[in-house]
Amino acid sequence: MSAQHLRQSTPRYVGIATELRERILDQQLAPHTLMPSERELSEQFAVSRMTARQALTLLESEGHVYRRPPRGTFVAEPRVRFQIGSFSEEANRLGRDASAQLLWAKALVGPGNGATAARAALGLAADDVIHAFRRLRLMEGEPLAIETTYFPASLTPGILDVEVHGSLWQLLRGRYDLRLERSKAVLESIVLDEGACERLAVRAASNGILLTRTTVDDQGRCVEYARDVYRADRAAFEVTASVAR
Amino acid sequence: MSAQHLRQSTPRYVGIATELRERILDQQLAPHTLMPSERELSEQFAVSRMTARQALTLLESEGHVYRRPPRGTFVAEPRVRFQIGSFSEEANRLGRDASAQLLWAKALVGPGNGATAARAALGLAADDVIHAFRRLRLMEGEPLAIETTYFPASLTPGILDVEVHGSLWQLLRGRYDLRLERSKAVLESIVLDEGACERLAVRAASNGILLTRTTVDDQGRCVEYARDVYRADRAAFEVTASVAR
Repeated sequence: MSAQHLRQSTPRYVGIATELRERILDQQLAPHTLMPSERELSEQFAVSRMTARQALTLLESEGHVYRRPPRGTFVAEPRVRFQIGSFSEEANRLGRDASAQLLWAKALVGPGNGATAARAALGLAADDVIHAFRRLRLMEGEPLAIETTYFPASLTPGILDVEVHGSLWQLLRGRYDLRLERSKAVLESIVLDEGACERLAVRAASNGILLTRTTVDDQGRCVEYARDVYRADRAAFEVTASVAR
Repeated sequence: MSAQHLRQSTPRYVGIATELRERILDQQLAPHTLMPSERELSEQFAVSRMTARQALTLLESEGHVYRRPPRGTFVAEPRVRFQIGSFSEEANRLGRDASAQLLWAKALVGPGNGATAARAALGLAADDVIHAFRRLRLMEGEPLAIETTYFPASLTPGILDVEVHGSLWQLLRGRYDLRLERSKAVLESIVLDEGACERLAVRAASNGILLTRTTVDDQGRCVEYARDVYRADRAAFEVTASVAR
């Protein structure tokens, strides 16, 4: 595809959304401020009402604005800034209330449910059993993420029978005496599947951020493997790295 | 919107794409393997050819497959796994060739071009001058990112006149004797604007990952502020975090 072709096929509403997004991110437009109406935007940018509406719809799908008809469209709260770690402990750091809804808890024998990738990450053999949880994670009652967490069964006897309402890390520390040392994660952009969109109460085929995460203990053992799917419209990730000399 | 309503409105092709994506990520389908054809998929999943095509189009937009008509659709190379830092140094670490195309280099006086956010991050006053670069970054000749980098003019005299083909960090170290200590970044999912889609040679309104990044030197000064926009279909980010005790 030539650059010229791409230029011609780029919709105008994306450019308008970009300009409005910058005003929001630069805090020229504060959270819960009323956005310009479709009519105002169509006059200001000399476009059709339809184009103005598409720009607002794009910003809504990104989580930068929310609609409250018939009052209008408003600037949303900024995205939640997570650091890599436990959802519960992050909520705690941010002074917000975290909760969890258990979707399933299983002992995984053989492949399926992501067990093959989990065994590879945890350094387990093909016949080793894994204890796995899938949980919907909410902050202040709003669903933000779906966590699927895998532990070696040998390190976590009886964990499937524990009623876990909050932090699995707290359980690993308190009940299983594991000393968690560091987490490593790969972040990437994905399109959420049907189940995830439903659980997270977002439109079909919304964007998500996938964190594929491992946690190592003080003996250098990989004690946790997780695939966490976050709403891209509500979550941002803050990371720090040392610079190599 | 009720969960039931969301379930009904979720398109079938997203579920098919999810299943195929998992096969690719689990490496059941290796890079450059021929994917099942639309006809084969429509039989296998008992859907129309159109639905099968939509699933392949979604995977293509995510960068998991590429098309080579009339031969078919093939599994793509895995995404490039970046660590937070210099694009050039990351390419070097990965054993790949990095290059840069200068889009603009400016002394910023007053607001505009992101100068307000840059001044806040760099701890500068409203009348302090900033030296800024926008560069297209390529790996093995493929455009992957657009970097917009801001430096305090007081620390980087003459930098706008230097022909920079690779690492700005190398220049900060070598010419300006700055000792870079650590980088902090916020990662989030965005929709790429017109200019970015054109430069990165992707379809209009493709997804991107925005890294808003600051670098601090050994004196604790913020010496760099950057807004880097990566192709979401080609880049993933690997991060490490210590676990708080």
